[in-house]
Amino acid sequence: MLKSAELGLRVGKEEYDRRLPKLRLALLQAHWEIHQGRVPVVVVISGPEISGKGELINRLAAWLDPRGLEVNAFGPPSDEERERPPWWRFWRSLPPRGKIGIFLGSWYTVPIIGRVEGKLGKSAFQRDLDRIAFFERMLAEDGALIVKFWLHLSKKDQKKHLKRDERDPRTRWRVTPIDWKAFRLYDRFAKWSETALLRTDAPHAPWVVVDAADENHRDLAVGRYLLEALRRGADAMKEKSGAVKLARRARSVPAAGRVVPGAEGNVLDTVDLARRVADEAYRKELAKLQGRVGALTRKAFGKKVSSVLVFEGWDAGGKGGTIRRLTEAIDPRLYRVVPIAAPTEEERAQHYLWRFWRHLPRDGRVTIFDRSWYGRVLVERVEGFARPEEWERAYLEINDFEEQLAEHGAVVQKFWLHVSPAEQLRRFRERQRIGFKKHKITDEDWRNRKQREAYLAAISDMVARTDTPSARWTLVAANDKKIARLTVLETFAAVLGKRL
Amino acid sequence: MLKSAELGLRVGKEEYDRRLPKLRLALLQAHWEIHQGRVPVVVVISGPEISGKGELINRLAAWLDPRGLEVNAFGPPSDEERERPPWWRFWRSLPPRGKIGIFLGSWYTVPIIGRVEGKLGKSAFQRDLDRIAFFERMLAEDGALIVKFWLHLSKKDQKKHLKRDERDPRTRWRVTPIDWKAFRLYDRFAKWSETALLRTDAPHAPWVVVDAADENHRDLAVGRYLLEALRRGADAMKEKSGAVKLARRARSVPAAGRVVPGAEGNVLDTVDLARRVADEAYRKELAKLQGRVGALTRKAFGKKVSSVLVFEGWDAGGKGGTIRRLTEAIDPRLYRVVPIAAPTEEERAQHYLWRFWRHLPRDGRVTIFDRSWYGRVLVERVEGFARPEEWERAYLEINDFEEQLAEHGAVVQKFWLHVSPAEQLRRFRERQRIGFKKHKITDEDWRNRKQREAYLAAISDMVARTDTPSARWTLVAANDKKIARLTVLETFAAVLGKRL
Repeated sequence: MLKSAELGLRVGKEEYDRRLPKLRLALLQAHWEIHQGRVPVVVVISGPEISGKGELINRLAAWLDPRGLEVNAFGPPSDEERERPPWWRFWRSLPPRGKIGIFLGSWYTVPIIGRVEGKLGKSAFQRDLDRIAFFERMLAEDGALIVKFWLHLSKKDQKKHLKRDERDPRTRWRVTPIDWKAFRLYDRFAKWSETALLRTDAPHAPWVVVDAADENHRDLAVGRYLLEALRRGADAMKEKSGAVKLARRARSVPAAGRVVPGAEGNVLDTVDLARRVADEAYRKELAKLQGRVGALTRKAFGKKVSSVLVFEGWDAGGKGGTIRRLTEAIDPRLYRVVPIAAPTEEERAQHYLWRFWRHLPRDGRVTIFDRSWYGRVLVERVEGFARPEEWERAYLEINDFEEQLAEHGAVVQKFWLHVSPAEQLRRFRERQRIGFKKHKITDEDWRNRKQREAYLAAISDMVARTDTPSARWTLVAANDKKIARLTVLETFAAVLGKRL
Repeated sequence: MLKSAELGLRVGKEEYDRRLPKLRLALLQAHWEIHQGRVPVVVVISGPEISGKGELINRLAAWLDPRGLEVNAFGPPSDEERERPPWWRFWRSLPPRGKIGIFLGSWYTVPIIGRVEGKLGKSAFQRDLDRIAFFERMLAEDGALIVKFWLHLSKKDQKKHLKRDERDPRTRWRVTPIDWKAFRLYDRFAKWSETALLRTDAPHAPWVVVDAADENHRDLAVGRYLLEALRRGADAMKEKSGAVKLARRARSVPAAGRVVPGAEGNVLDTVDLARRVADEAYRKELAKLQGRVGALTRKAFGKKVSSVLVFEGWDAGGKGGTIRRLTEAIDPRLYRVVPIAAPTEEERAQHYLWRFWRHLPRDGRVTIFDRSWYGRVLVERVEGFARPEEWERAYLEINDFEEQLAEHGAVVQKFWLHVSPAEQLRRFRERQRIGFKKHKITDEDWRNRKQREAYLAAISDMVARTDTPSARWTLVAANDKKIARLTVLETFAAVLGKRL
């Protein structure tokens, strides 16, 4: 969830100055409508040190109407607070209907820090997160609009920011030994933050992960997302059907990836499609990796560690060929390829996850899904086969499913085979030309191609919301099929090797 | 939650034979409609050993259409099952749309037994329960109808059943040392079962606790509740608006207490209203108890243990006088009485729980709520001030709220002051007659009196769903005001004394 925000987006001063006035005006207008509609708005601003939470809030406060805004920061509890249950301080800070309450830190801080410092066990941590999820659902059901921003810094960027602030005499004061200590815990902090975000990322209280490396980008992205959320909240209220309707509408607040479609970059942009490999090098590397995968899967069988591999990707992305190079490497008694097409009648009579549960491998085996449960948030979302509330709640359902696999000890690894539109077109045409490949190209493929924009948004959301510590996405550069095959074999070997 | 089902209801053979044919016919009809409407139905049958789960399921199977029914029992996992995540066995047993799946044991067994035997820590147990709640919500959102029955036996009844079965040569085989061992763990089992039930009792997947002491009562009660649930499920499906609508309707499946209003007894029937105490004994006992409460609350202040006391009850039930006898006993610096009337404008601008959070005592103090957050599920429910989905989800919200108080170390004790309709009428008339009491009786009181039936259902639900291990209800016999006062003082002294 965090990595997918590292898009390296920058906004220059000129562009910032050009875009800001319009945004401010729109924010003020939306704020006024929220006030009129008496919608309470909870805005959580979280993230690591040095990510600029304070500066961001200063800017937001300047952009919004101060009469309708309350900023709440939480330091160590007062004695008044210590003598009551921990949630008391948050309850008494909640904004009334019609106001925006900005929470710096919030109810996420104590559990995450507790977990990072090892004071909180895994189960207790999860229990805390479940209570948070319950709390936010309760507010949303009561009509509140909830938006949560996580200001993310890559490890490199965090170090850079620390050094920069230390050099500058105006900011040196704010870099303390605690910040450097926090930096040394970066990986632990990132891991448990991501866990917290994933478990509390709900349609009615979505997390928006913003790359905070560039301040202008950070503030504009938050501002624009907040604007969109406020507008939807106000619209829903105007429909006059009260809180229930609002709660339902709040579900369709745009997901992390699509702040303003097309304008904020896409996680697929980070894939280097230009990579190529020469035939000779490919053959040697392939043989080596296949040997490794063969040996590792045998070892995994002995140790009863099963693997669940998921292949998704653009049409003509080369899934079939890639899977073949993988299965060539594995003892045929140990793997199974499950191609996922339209559900059977029996499968349609069950929850959509049912047909994937039934195909789970026994311990020690490898199951390869050629397309998968992600159809729910890809084709079913784009084509409207699933209603918004269905695919929106699917992210949590999928994460829980994969977490159960991981808890049982399975390796879960997911691949997206990425090709450029031009390469895809070339392959489509080639398929039409070459007789034995003709069956592989259908009208549907051409139609899907036209939906590329919608798919891009869906893929961005999918990666943001389901790239979890227990089940990672690897975005595979597949313009060169050979590179794709090597990447998949290498990734699987690395992940499985690490587990054994 | 469990105790409130111990109503001692019996159904004689004659009555059973008279009522059964109609029930069976109606069940078959409802089952057929469920089949037509393609609603998947999940029926969980749980409870301790010797509660007759097997016999009940045999009867249900005989009453329903076997072609639309699947019974799933879960023993130790097979090797196939052990080699996959624990939930695999449940997923593959789920009924398809249009069928009823009866689950004997189910996903509740392993966590509860694990907790009772101490193999599962408290946090891990709660985490398991949260996963169950997530699973059931997921099925319900997909259109499933979920009904869960807990066959309850009081400790006395369980012992009686064990001895009875041992005596009878036909049933002797089924009483094993394990059953007696289970019986010795009765209290632990009851405690953790109750915790599990409370946390997973949701509008879309309600628990129905049935007193299993009498077999005929047990089976008829389950049959009638199941019938009502099936009918509602089928009706909702007929509205043709698909799964979303169904999920919404499923929320209004009747709660535990009101299987068939009026027919199944009420928890208030267990209160012995005939108890009286002589003046002299009262004065002596009052002085003694007040002294104890005074000493204990001083000690609690030193130990920083706070108390939250809730008073609810019928109009003219004597709350005011009872509270006065209590506060007389406590150092005035240590207590506060919070009378709850209609919310202020500021309070209306927040979630309904907000105004109770703000009144929480600091450590070591006593806060007495004269009426409380239970208004949500009493007057607001009965008068329609809260929509059904609002008051139905309030039980979980209230339980979470009180659990947070208890986790912080507070004593939480709730009292319902119960008077008979006749006594209430006498007091109303007396108030009208006596000048200085006249202000205490209003038109509203007379109107509430007419709503007694609706209140009885609401009280029954309330006690069933919010009598939790961390915050108990005491139903106080208040026809004699003196008895009521002594009971309250005695209960508070006992609960606080136990904590200190």
